[in-house]
Amino acid sequence: MTIDLEALYIDLHRHPELSFQETRTAGIAAQHLRDLGLEVEEEVGVTGVVGVLRNGEGPVVWARADMDALPVEELSGLPYASTATGVDPAGNTVPIMHACGHDMHVTAMIGAVERLVAERAEWSGTLVVLIQPAEEYGAGSRAMLDAGLLDRYPKPDVVLGQHVTPLPAGVIGVRPGPQMAAADGITVTMHGRGGHGSRPHTTIDPVVMAAATVMRLQTIASRELDPREVGVVTVGSIHAGTKSNIIPAVAKLELSLRYPDDAARAKVLASVERIVRAEAVASGAEREPEFHTEHTLPPTINDAAATARVVAALRRTLGEGAVVDPGMFTGSEDVSWFARDSGAPLVFWFFGGVDPAVYAAAEAAGTVASTIPTNHSAYFAPVPHPTIEVGVTAMATAVREFLG
Amino acid sequence: MTIDLEALYIDLHRHPELSFQETRTAGIAAQHLRDLGLEVEEEVGVTGVVGVLRNGEGPVVWARADMDALPVEELSGLPYASTATGVDPAGNTVPIMHACGHDMHVTAMIGAVERLVAERAEWSGTLVVLIQPAEEYGAGSRAMLDAGLLDRYPKPDVVLGQHVTPLPAGVIGVRPGPQMAAADGITVTMHGRGGHGSRPHTTIDPVVMAAATVMRLQTIASRELDPREVGVVTVGSIHAGTKSNIIPAVAKLELSLRYPDDAARAKVLASVERIVRAEAVASGAEREPEFHTEHTLPPTINDAAATARVVAALRRTLGEGAVVDPGMFTGSEDVSWFARDSGAPLVFWFFGGVDPAVYAAAEAAGTVASTIPTNHSAYFAPVPHPTIEVGVTAMATAVREFLG
Amino acid sequence: MTIDLEALYIDLHRHPELSFQETRTAGIAAQHLRDLGLEVEEEVGVTGVVGVLRNGEGPVVWARADMDALPVEELSGLPYASTATGVDPAGNTVPIMHACGHDMHVTAMIGAVERLVAERAEWSGTLVVLIQPAEEYGAGSRAMLDAGLLDRYPKPDVVLGQHVTPLPAGVIGVRPGPQMAAADGITVTMHGRGGHGSRPHTTIDPVVMAAATVMRLQTIASRELDPREVGVVTVGSIHAGTKSNIIPAVAKLELSLRYPDDAARAKVLASVERIVRAEAVASGAEREPEFHTEHTLPPTINDAAATARVVAALRRTLGEGAVVDPGMFTGSEDVSWFARDSGAPLVFWFFGGVDPAVYAAAEAAGTVASTIPTNHSAYFAPVPHPTIEVGVTAMATAVREFLG
Amino acid sequence: MTIDLEALYIDLHRHPELSFQETRTAGIAAQHLRDLGLEVEEEVGVTGVVGVLRNGEGPVVWARADMDALPVEELSGLPYASTATGVDPAGNTVPIMHACGHDMHVTAMIGAVERLVAERAEWSGTLVVLIQPAEEYGAGSRAMLDAGLLDRYPKPDVVLGQHVTPLPAGVIGVRPGPQMAAADGITVTMHGRGGHGSRPHTTIDPVVMAAATVMRLQTIASRELDPREVGVVTVGSIHAGTKSNIIPAVAKLELSLRYPDDAARAKVLASVERIVRAEAVASGAEREPEFHTEHTLPPTINDAAATARVVAALRRTLGEGAVVDPGMFTGSEDVSWFARDSGAPLVFWFFGGVDPAVYAAAEAAGTVASTIPTNHSAYFAPVPHPTIEVGVTAMATAVREFLG
Repeated sequence: MTIDLEALYIDLHRHPELSFQETRTAGIAAQHLRDLGLEVEEEVGVTGVVGVLRNGEGPVVWARADMDALPVEELSGLPYASTATGVDPAGNTVPIMHACGHDMHVTAMIGAVERLVAERAEWSGTLVVLIQPAEEYGAGSRAMLDAGLLDRYPKPDVVLGQHVTPLPAGVIGVRPGPQMAAADGITVTMHGRGGHGSRPHTTIDPVVMAAATVMRLQTIASRELDPREVGVVTVGSIHAGTKSNIIPAVAKLELSLRYPDDAARAKVLASVERIVRAEAVASGAEREPEFHTEHTLPPTINDAAATARVVAALRRTLGEGAVVDPGMFTGSEDVSWFARDSGAPLVFWFFGGVDPAVYAAAEAAGTVASTIPTNHSAYFAPVPHPTIEVGVTAMATAVREFLG
Repeated sequence: MTIDLEALYIDLHRHPELSFQETRTAGIAAQHLRDLGLEVEEEVGVTGVVGVLRNGEGPVVWARADMDALPVEELSGLPYASTATGVDPAGNTVPIMHACGHDMHVTAMIGAVERLVAERAEWSGTLVVLIQPAEEYGAGSRAMLDAGLLDRYPKPDVVLGQHVTPLPAGVIGVRPGPQMAAADGITVTMHGRGGHGSRPHTTIDPVVMAAATVMRLQTIASRELDPREVGVVTVGSIHAGTKSNIIPAVAKLELSLRYPDDAARAKVLASVERIVRAEAVASGAEREPEFHTEHTLPPTINDAAATARVVAALRRTLGEGAVVDPGMFTGSEDVSWFARDSGAPLVFWFFGGVDPAVYAAAEAAGTVASTIPTNHSAYFAPVPHPTIEVGVTAMATAVREFLG
Repeated sequence: MTIDLEALYIDLHRHPELSFQETRTAGIAAQHLRDLGLEVEEEVGVTGVVGVLRNGEGPVVWARADMDALPVEELSGLPYASTATGVDPAGNTVPIMHACGHDMHVTAMIGAVERLVAERAEWSGTLVVLIQPAEEYGAGSRAMLDAGLLDRYPKPDVVLGQHVTPLPAGVIGVRPGPQMAAADGITVTMHGRGGHGSRPHTTIDPVVMAAATVMRLQTIASRELDPREVGVVTVGSIHAGTKSNIIPAVAKLELSLRYPDDAARAKVLASVERIVRAEAVASGAEREPEFHTEHTLPPTINDAAATARVVAALRRTLGEGAVVDPGMFTGSEDVSWFARDSGAPLVFWFFGGVDPAVYAAAEAAGTVASTIPTNHSAYFAPVPHPTIEVGVTAMATAVREFLG
Repeated sequence: MTIDLEALYIDLHRHPELSFQETRTAGIAAQHLRDLGLEVEEEVGVTGVVGVLRNGEGPVVWARADMDALPVEELSGLPYASTATGVDPAGNTVPIMHACGHDMHVTAMIGAVERLVAERAEWSGTLVVLIQPAEEYGAGSRAMLDAGLLDRYPKPDVVLGQHVTPLPAGVIGVRPGPQMAAADGITVTMHGRGGHGSRPHTTIDPVVMAAATVMRLQTIASRELDPREVGVVTVGSIHAGTKSNIIPAVAKLELSLRYPDDAARAKVLASVERIVRAEAVASGAEREPEFHTEHTLPPTINDAAATARVVAALRRTLGEGAVVDPGMFTGSEDVSWFARDSGAPLVFWFFGGVDPAVYAAAEAAGTVASTIPTNHSAYFAPVPHPTIEVGVTAMATAVREFLG
């Protein structure tokens, strides 16, 4: 191998970029793909990159890696920890880090393409590499599709994607059927009436209104959803007011909702709206709350037949015990849009990023949940090796399964 | 009169400045005082201005006007509404307005000094004019005192101050004894553990922790304070999180607390701490919440004898019915430090800023509380006339009461 | 004196009776009044007793004592503590005690009448003694009035009443104007949908609905009422469900609401209804909550002139320092209906029941609020002496003030 | 058949009895078993009945039916609806109904025994029939075992049980492995300090303390449990106070907790205790809350091999499509103790009780969850036919599977 993947990974990790602002990352990925001989287009869906490797007759595989980072201040203590900042959509300057491992996805994809190029005599077909922006906004795959992906490139026979996760490095987790939840991101604006902090009776306090709403929203999971089904209602952010002695006029909540299917989605969305509106009424609000859907993510459902092929291939390559059923994940992905829009089957898998010795010790101590940092944590820090190598092998193996 | 007070008022209103950043306002006030012949010092307590008018033998009066504005976006619709922004202590750019009328206080003070200068043959003594910064932080009077006010200027025999309020313009509200509540401004930081919004069980959700705390804090006023006593616990701001699908690690609350006396203060402070700590425990927090006192304001207690003199003088000047007992205000002021530190009696009064016809109509309709914007509202908008004139007359009259 | 008032007090204390069931108490009181020579009628308003002492020309005084007990299990540890039980309106057998001291009121009234009879040569006029049932339901005075009190007996020139309270025995507390708050007792029934405790998603949980409502009701006092006004929203009882694993269909709340005046009453009642209805909506209730007003008590407002006369007389009799202004009480009384319906002035005062040495020690230690049991506590226990004597003297003195 | 099972069912339905008070039901069951030729003992575990049918060599089958009813007021509108009342453990008279279908279990068991007796020439072995009390308290199977069941009767080779449920009549639901959740029933007593409803500041309000606790307990399911695992925290009852204007001293909560396994159990129990204690602290409680475990139910785990045999037999008898996997139930059972204590495999299945046409219509309309009454509902009403027949056949078939 001529590309130094560890160096690439560390470079990307040090230079995280927020969603739809991934110009540096996209440029680096595009350059590598060009160097490897692919036809490359940039700015496909804002900052998206598409690389095409036509290698004779055969099926078309879309292989996707996402590349954006998160507004999280890195606390990993790594020598290559991010100290970067960015400007979020609200105009605030915020610290950024690759807290969801998309730097690893890009690295593994470049490594896989390098290997597939090296092995091009052994397979035939077309590989379309998608370096996708803004997965964290649930908006990047739609942006690429809306930029005409299906018209401008060969249509896929299968869509592949992978995600690093807190399994031991070396382990692949994948299952047929529902693999990740459907999700919506919703912003709720609740209107009170501001005034002086010492005269609450002349105001309608949106802080109390929002707090009561947060408490009530807990009851969707605890009382309204079937305990046997996956469902999550998270209020990820709450913001109201500027100082202690001014009661503000407005409170904003950002909600992340997860469900296994469309029926549960309809129920949860209706419950959220019912509760928010009722709590506004309880406060005597003079103006209706407002709801804005930031993104809607379909469930990530792996095609049974295609997944069985990938599982078998990975077991041959990585060892029988290297592939596990990780269960359904409550997180969500926008990779499904590529499969939904094209009608192609999807295979989306997880690959572990935790030092196997650390994981084994935590498992023995029963402290996996409390000590292994998860995606989106400020401490999230995949070990470069063998995570990179397994990611490269998994993607290259899966592509080869369909292209020979 | 040669100073155009309406123009001065509108200019100040258009150019509000945040606490301790009142350089333009201070400069304008200082220039007027100098033009009127006072000895003027600037930057007494960051941006404070002191003007001294020595006019022969006699008592020393400290007359104070505060000058800072608030991080509120003006919605008054006035032709001279503020469109200004500023940078708050957190580094955020925020809209600013004179939502508490301190522009009116400065205007009336300049007008009063102009009149007192014009009438200087009729009285004798020393007038010390204090143009105070950062009343909204409860920090400006301490800053001026800590800058050596008592050592550098004649010590007062009486301290005077006034505040515009939603009474009809032309009406003065003042009472002996407790006039405004004691207050503390407290910042509370609650620590959870962050993670992905779809995996709440791996986190300790500080949004829920903070919401439960806000709801519980309501019970201090509803269950713990004697219903016959004045007590307020306001959560003026709540902030946690950056986006819907990341559960943050920290939530911040800013509290404004009000009490009639030190015993109630001790009780409320203890209850706030008890509740915040217990709610952190209820969430399973791994780290104790942190408390930071932003400001402590003593009760504003008018000296009975000095107040009686001012009331009598104002009744003679403005009419018997022009002075009312407005009751105790739940708001707080830092003007008391001038009196407390110097040992001089305090007289602090309110003057109305609402169009009398509008007020009368609202009173007849029983809608005063719901339709007349109060201090700190985005709609707060004193009518320039006769508010300015009454403010000038009230201050000049009160000063003359002590200086002859 | 020939009546053993201590024995009477202890007997009444040992035999408390619930509201409108005071047949034993009424019989004892009626017998004493008859023995003292009054014309006596029983069952005036269920269990009410009226005794009339016509003593020549002169004004008519109505002197009222209430006589019902409370469903509280006595924990005083007194040798004469109640072990009685009764059947409450719901049909439940409950422990009963004189937790509000009405036994003391009856005892003091009998003692006062005995003294007035003994002194009858010294005064002239008509004394109407009212032994009232069901003050705790806020229903007894209305029941007596609705039984024709004003038609059947001489109309009053003044209405007198007294109440034992946690002041030192020997001290009288009374003030002109508002003496006690207005109040409503309201029962709220909230409807969910029952089911198995393990399947909350098939139910609408009324326990959560009621809990959220209780938390939200706290915000009326904390956010909606002027901090300078007296206002209380108490949820005195909450009941739902029969066992852990059945989610019930219904929750019941009993609310006690207090206000200084009719405007605050209208506001609080509207807020309670708004909040309860909104919380039912937030839960997705299929049926509207129901509200039932159990009682409505007017504010207890002492006539200024009549109160001044009583205060002066009590000071002459008990000593200058024996009469204090106790401030407005947030509790409520139904004695006002006698004055409201008849148009006569009211004087209603408190007399202390705490051992003066105990009170002084608690005051010195700053523990009055935490260690002196208040009315309605299971530990409420007036000391018989000098409480009885002061109660007798106070009532006899007040009556003599008007009858000479 | 000579026993009129419909008449038996209706008779039992009309005469429900609370847990451990099932003397009439036990007597009827015992009489039928004796009439059918079994050796019968009564009062095995308070009101339990054991019938033994020795029919030659062969395995021993324990077949269990539970018989107690619930304190629910029947609202089914059936001509044979219960109007019975009973006295609950607190001494309150309460309405009772067979809201969980145990009357159907007894009926089906009697019918099955009748059939097995009739067919006794065709099989050999020993049948031990257990008519168990107090399943609703989670206490009856323990009571029977603690009465020496394993010493006094032949030890089982398999334990069988069945439960009527809102599936269509004719359908059996059963799965190997986890069939029902583990559960605990816990009573929590929270201590405040009582007083008058108008003086909350002298009290520690246990109603608010309990309401805040209920709201906080919701966060165990919404924030602390893995969304992919079954977990339920239900507050089935809340009781505090006796009337509106007395703040009580104590609040009682009854909690029903459900979990898939022991790890989740430990976590939930710890969270409940942490939250309850913290909320007591938040209220300033002077006394620790008290916890009492009413019952602990193990998970109901069907033995894989034995269940496979029963499923196959039922499919042969009732039709291939008559047996479905109903998923894991969040409800709990105490039947497992019989298997756990004896070491025998367990097979526990559900049989439908809903009119198939009604069910089909509800399914088509998507209203199964909202219109079909579930167990413990006041509207729960299995249709007698073919529910009884299917229950008889299912139990007889399962017994024959093991006894030939």
